[in-house]
Amino acid sequence: MTPIRIAVTPGEPAGIGPDLIIQLAQQQWDAQLVVFCDGTMLKARADLLGLPLKLIPFDAENNAIQAPGSLYLQQIDTAVNVVPGELDSDNGHYVVETLRQACHANMEQGFDAVVTGPVHKGIINKAGVSFSGHTEYFAYQSNTIDVVMLLSTEGLNVALATTHIPLEYVSKAITKERLHKVIHIINTDLKLKFGITKPRIYVCGLNPHAGEGGHLGSEELITIIPALDDLREEGLDLVGPLPADTIFQPKYLDDADVVLAMYHDQGLPVLKFKGFGASVNITLGLPFIRTSVDHGTACDLAGTGKADAGSFTKAMHKAIELANRQQ
Amino acid sequence: MTPIRIAVTPGEPAGIGPDLIIQLAQQQWDAQLVVFCDGTMLKARADLLGLPLKLIPFDAENNAIQAPGSLYLQQIDTAVNVVPGELDSDNGHYVVETLRQACHANMEQGFDAVVTGPVHKGIINKAGVSFSGHTEYFAYQSNTIDVVMLLSTEGLNVALATTHIPLEYVSKAITKERLHKVIHIINTDLKLKFGITKPRIYVCGLNPHAGEGGHLGSEELITIIPALDDLREEGLDLVGPLPADTIFQPKYLDDADVVLAMYHDQGLPVLKFKGFGASVNITLGLPFIRTSVDHGTACDLAGTGKADAGSFTKAMHKAIELANRQQ
Repeated sequence: MTPIRIAVTPGEPAGIGPDLIIQLAQQQWDAQLVVFCDGTMLKARADLLGLPLKLIPFDAENNAIQAPGSLYLQQIDTAVNVVPGELDSDNGHYVVETLRQACHANMEQGFDAVVTGPVHKGIINKAGVSFSGHTEYFAYQSNTIDVVMLLSTEGLNVALATTHIPLEYVSKAITKERLHKVIHIINTDLKLKFGITKPRIYVCGLNPHAGEGGHLGSEELITIIPALDDLREEGLDLVGPLPADTIFQPKYLDDADVVLAMYHDQGLPVLKFKGFGASVNITLGLPFIRTSVDHGTACDLAGTGKADAGSFTKAMHKAIELANRQQ
Repeated sequence: MTPIRIAVTPGEPAGIGPDLIIQLAQQQWDAQLVVFCDGTMLKARADLLGLPLKLIPFDAENNAIQAPGSLYLQQIDTAVNVVPGELDSDNGHYVVETLRQACHANMEQGFDAVVTGPVHKGIINKAGVSFSGHTEYFAYQSNTIDVVMLLSTEGLNVALATTHIPLEYVSKAITKERLHKVIHIINTDLKLKFGITKPRIYVCGLNPHAGEGGHLGSEELITIIPALDDLREEGLDLVGPLPADTIFQPKYLDDADVVLAMYHDQGLPVLKFKGFGASVNITLGLPFIRTSVDHGTACDLAGTGKADAGSFTKAMHKAIELANRQQ
């Protein structure tokens, strides 16, 4: 059987992304890892960390899995020399190019997944590239209209109905149409990518106590309950809306394949508390598997050897697990 | 030394409050527990549960601590017979009267704390009594203008800047004035009631990623940061605003005396997840100590023996702990 082939993007070169993929390369993986970045930068970082790193030029015909201490390389040149910890907008285009090529590799070259390290949105935008995030970029590059952000840790998956918008706009963003789309994407991808025959989706209310019958807000009655009822008629297995401060109890979590939160800070604090910094970000709705770290570039730790590879490791394991299920 | 004297209100008589106080009465407490309710109702519930219960009429001159299986009783008559599990608005006034007398006992009769079981707001309002919650009722009865809701579990205290309002109104409710008031109350009560010399308060942002420098909302820049800066000038020890999905990490929680969330579903899901249904609700700002269960009336479990006394037990322990510190 051909091994799983994973495109890996270390992300911001001045951050800890390169450090983390070098740390991961020290162990044996049951997949071919192809890193999309500047090999000179990566080798210099490995030297700084005192870790061995052999870079093998990527060749689509070569299906061998790399040995510990080595990685396959799809070379993409940085524009200027990289100093760990020092953001440089001259390399903004380079970062986006690594993502573009990794996306292309998944869309057209038979790669099985992409695993992404952290990027710095500010410095990319400073470089003159309009960039609001990996998720949006991959959606655009793959002609996907709607995607859903799902965070996963041991025993808990949390999907978000809205993501990075100011809190005051959340209520207006929760429409029946959005809930239909988001829940369809979750249901489809949990079947296709996670192999769950009939996903059971637990849904949070928007307001405290899920609106308490209309006393604490009306969106549940006007929007959420009718949307869920429509979807139940289609045969989807939905529970809720339930209050966010009771939905994360063991009796519900043991039964739920995923919890859908209405907004960022309703769902992610529990997920990250439970995951202790080792959760994985998975984009649902894309035509390929994409997992990611759940943290930022942590530039102050780049090159120090102090970066924690927990989330990157989980993201890699998850990508391989999901890719194996597709084969 | 005179023992601590606690006023206990079982709350809704058709719910599990009576069951829980009867369960608690089976153990030895280092405090005099005076239950404010109808003794006939309570005795009937004890018989239903098959638990011994001796009710001793409350006498302010008698300082003896009750033995296991007994409670002191401040008799308040129900209007109609209580059927476990069946809400009856005819007893709505009775429930409020138990709270009024318990409050009075703390304000004027030297009681050391009040511990409250769950009430059913709907049935009280149906009885024609405008009632929005224990907290608001005690504030009104004690002429207190501003109070703060704090939930506590082992290793984590979460206070709320706003409580039971629809999500769409939260942004407008977060003003500098409110933050000043809320943080002053927290700071004062953590010193006075919790005995913390210089409370360290961690503060959440309002928006995802605490607004990410204005990219995801402006309330942090316009309201929260200036409010915190004012309070720091007064000498308060404040950290933040921090993103809600990173503030609940061990490195912060080990350092924080309390985390201030901007709204209900930002702070309580983590608190209740961590507390596994055994957290305590504490009202700050009142002229007396008040703790409460963190759950509802669970009428379907009344009289069945299946009610979990975990939160009521914690509420009692917390009240006794705080009251002892005052002596």
